Amino acid sequence: MQLSKLGEFRLIKGLEKFCETTSRKDVILGIGDDAAAIKTSKGIILITSDTLIEGVHFDLSFTTSYQLGYKILAVNISDIFAMGGKPKYFILNLAIPRTSDTKCVREIYRGIKKLANKFDIAIIGGDTSASKDKLLLSGTLIGETKKIITRAGARPGDGIFVTGTLGDSAMGLRILKKIGKKINFEGQGMKIKGSPLPLTPYTLSLIKQHLMPEPRPLKDISGVTSMIDISDGLLMDLSHICEKSRVGAIIYKDKIPLSKELINAARDLNIDPFRFAFKGGEDYVLLFTASSGVKINAFRIGEIIEQGCFIVDAKGKKTPFKAEGYEHFRRKF
Amino acid sequence: MQLSKLGEFRLIKGLEKFCETTSRKDVILGIGDDAAAIKTSKGIILITSDTLIEGVHFDLSFTTSYQLGYKILAVNISDIFAMGGKPKYFILNLAIPRTSDTKCVREIYRGIKKLANKFDIAIIGGDTSASKDKLLLSGTLIGETKKIITRAGARPGDGIFVTGTLGDSAMGLRILKKIGKKINFEGQGMKIKGSPLPLTPYTLSLIKQHLMPEPRPLKDISGVTSMIDISDGLLMDLSHICEKSRVGAIIYKDKIPLSKELINAARDLNIDPFRFAFKGGEDYVLLFTASSGVKINAFRIGEIIEQGCFIVDAKGKKTPFKAEGYEHFRRKF
Repeated sequence: MQLSKLGEFRLIKGLEKFCETTSRKDVILGIGDDAAAIKTSKGIILITSDTLIEGVHFDLSFTTSYQLGYKILAVNISDIFAMGGKPKYFILNLAIPRTSDTKCVREIYRGIKKLANKFDIAIIGGDTSASKDKLLLSGTLIGETKKIITRAGARPGDGIFVTGTLGDSAMGLRILKKIGKKINFEGQGMKIKGSPLPLTPYTLSLIKQHLMPEPRPLKDISGVTSMIDISDGLLMDLSHICEKSRVGAIIYKDKIPLSKELINAARDLNIDPFRFAFKGGEDYVLLFTASSGVKINAFRIGEIIEQGCFIVDAKGKKTPFKAEGYEHFRRKF
Repeated sequence: MQLSKLGEFRLIKGLEKFCETTSRKDVILGIGDDAAAIKTSKGIILITSDTLIEGVHFDLSFTTSYQLGYKILAVNISDIFAMGGKPKYFILNLAIPRTSDTKCVREIYRGIKKLANKFDIAIIGGDTSASKDKLLLSGTLIGETKKIITRAGARPGDGIFVTGTLGDSAMGLRILKKIGKKINFEGQGMKIKGSPLPLTPYTLSLIKQHLMPEPRPLKDISGVTSMIDISDGLLMDLSHICEKSRVGAIIYKDKIPLSKELINAARDLNIDPFRFAFKGGEDYVLLFTASSGVKINAFRIGEIIEQGCFIVDAKGKKTPFKAEGYEHFRRKF
């Protein structure tokens, strides 16, 4: 069967079964969550890995090498935060076209280091090889934690929360594609010829959210029952929690946090901002569930139910939703 | 400057400096050895990463998916063995063309599992994404050890050793390229039309050495002062040891272990087998130095001297050698 027919998540499910690690007591979590978890005598080691491929995940006509370096670390940090962990060590595998300039590599590392310094992450190694014609970054991040939060602990009655506004990154990408040029976030207010939108602080903010997302940990994880980071879109990632926890979910549309920047841009482009918030993806904010009654500093957008997944709008109209968002091998968004 | 001018190893040296980790007491070894090493309360954790890219490291017209899976783990195991460690956990990042068959992914994992089972390695996770048109495998392997052997401990007077014959893999690749077809090692003795060499047990053995190298650890590392695995070729990898240890080396040409398969194939093709043994690369045998007097079960090919790198032939003629072998961004072999 072609991969495009099977889809990414059914493929992963098959591999999960094939690589089953239940016989290994040191492996707490194998394939199928944001990170793998290994038990050591002192605590838990988390390992996560993510790849960015030119032409698939980024376009060099509107992404700088510095931004790429920053982002490959950011998306990996987001996975460690999604497990309740602290990021510690980063390894980069780089495949670079032979004709590239060395400045490209230095800029990638400068971007990584910017974020690494912020979270006290050591860049400890990697592999550098020549690629045929495309740039490729594959990052592996190792973290630590005392206790892991998986996708599998949500229970009916739990609240559903997100740690930030949704849809900004996807809208930022939309705008960036229209502009089609690199932006280094130093030219606020300037106009780029042929751009449908001026580079105002609000469009810049959305673009920055896409190119250089800033992962933030959930400081207090007591009472948190399940967690994931939103990389494939709210509906898709919430479906992952529901599936692993064997529960359903209700989301209240008017509780979804939208930034004023997204609302402005959606109005200017005459698009429904919720399309971006529900299915846009690459938000890199945390989506989690917590026992009812626990005081949490995040946006409460719904609650876990026994079964079925629904969006309820401001008028109380209930619509079922499916796991939709970004899936490799298929293109839904 | 173009990468092709700077070369891989000067690039890595620059990154080593940029990512300096001396301020972190938990990082024993950062960029610049076969694996990175982190200190924990119980021992040392080793982390290594390697990438195989279609069109650069392999050609799907004569490599099966099963062989690719096997090899991506094998090359990573070799790096852990080169540090004196035991491989434990494997993570695979896969980028696959959207039009690929799911069988390709299953076969890759089957190849990984074949070798993982042998060394009791758990496959704990990874990332799967769609690539534009090329297949790409990036593997990260985590290992454990009580004591690490780096590239930096060789001292004048130490013997230089290798754990297996050299040049087989490079010759295997040469033959495979001429045959230009997939070989699953089940058709011994058969002829492939248009092949310059029949598929005899000896050509098959060389080809297998290239497609499915079998990493072997050095069982007793007492007395070993430095170690590396031969992936870029003997001369290149020995130069890495000399540089890191700030020493020189003498190699005795008639002590280099050559397989009868390589000698036969080189005679049939009318090529000097030492070209393959010295610069071929991808041998994935261990190259190490050990204090004089230590009893070692490996081939002694030379000794460490104060400075300068030389090959001495059977007649006693001494020729200096440079760090030559496979280097990404340049093509020397």
